[in-house]
Amino acid sequence: MSTIFTKIIKREIPANIIYEDDLVIAFLDISQATLGHTLVVTKREYENIFELDDKISAHLYKVVVKLSKAINKAFNPSGLNILNNNGQVAGQTVFHYHIHIIPRYNESDVNFTLTNNYGLATQEELEKRCKAIQSAL
Amino acid sequence: MSTIFTKIIKREIPANIIYEDDLVIAFLDISQATLGHTLVVTKREYENIFELDDKISAHLYKVVVKLSKAINKAFNPSGLNILNNNGQVAGQTVFHYHIHIIPRYNESDVNFTLTNNYGLATQEELEKRCKAIQSAL
Repeated sequence: MSTIFTKIIKREIPANIIYEDDLVIAFLDISQATLGHTLVVTKREYENIFELDDKISAHLYKVVVKLSKAINKAFNPSGLNILNNNGQVAGQTVFHYHIHIIPRYNESDVNFTLTNNYGLATQEELEKRCKAIQSAL
Repeated sequence: MSTIFTKIIKREIPANIIYEDDLVIAFLDISQATLGHTLVVTKREYENIFELDDKISAHLYKVVVKLSKAINKAFNPSGLNILNNNGQVAGQTVFHYHIHIIPRYNESDVNFTLTNNYGLATQEELEKRCKAIQSAL
């Protein structure tokens, strides 16, 4: 069963395609969170970031940066967010790897405020977290 | 005047450094939005995504993906977000390029909901936006 993005890649369903190469495709998000909201999608059906290899990671972000510059030039927004959601709990709705480029025109158009819900961690706890990640690298 | 991140790179102020190479450094965000919240920072003081070149873009995201896998392994979160804010309006507070890796444990720990505040665009309007970006590429 193909994802909705694979159907776009195969031209089985329409989309406003901005850019395409062997590895990635970019098109306007049909639900424009803001004017110019764009998705950069891997052609292969990687489910999430944990499945990406070095080659696709590198290529993908080069394309994200190029498109961000073009969106900045085209619409002259006041700012821009890059967002990638992995897992339902993180807001992922299509389980085919994609990065959102979201040009911003004002503070209230979307809300990505990071709050510290967990409270301040002690230095001891931070060191423990740091070592846990290093051990998993 | 150095940014706070350059001061961390120069070891002028402390941080919980997870990873470092010639081009990037990664450390725990002192304000842990969630457990394991990590920043990947370019060593050079690029102000925002519009200043990145191909080489740093490619390398940076390879490191982001590697660290995301390690964070996933270390803390077994339910999901994970990648977020990059450019411009004050987009939530940028340190004007030195950095990408947030935010492991997610539940839906309410942060909120990155994308709503369509601009209303549905017509196909004609979407085509106009698509062409505007292509012309700027």
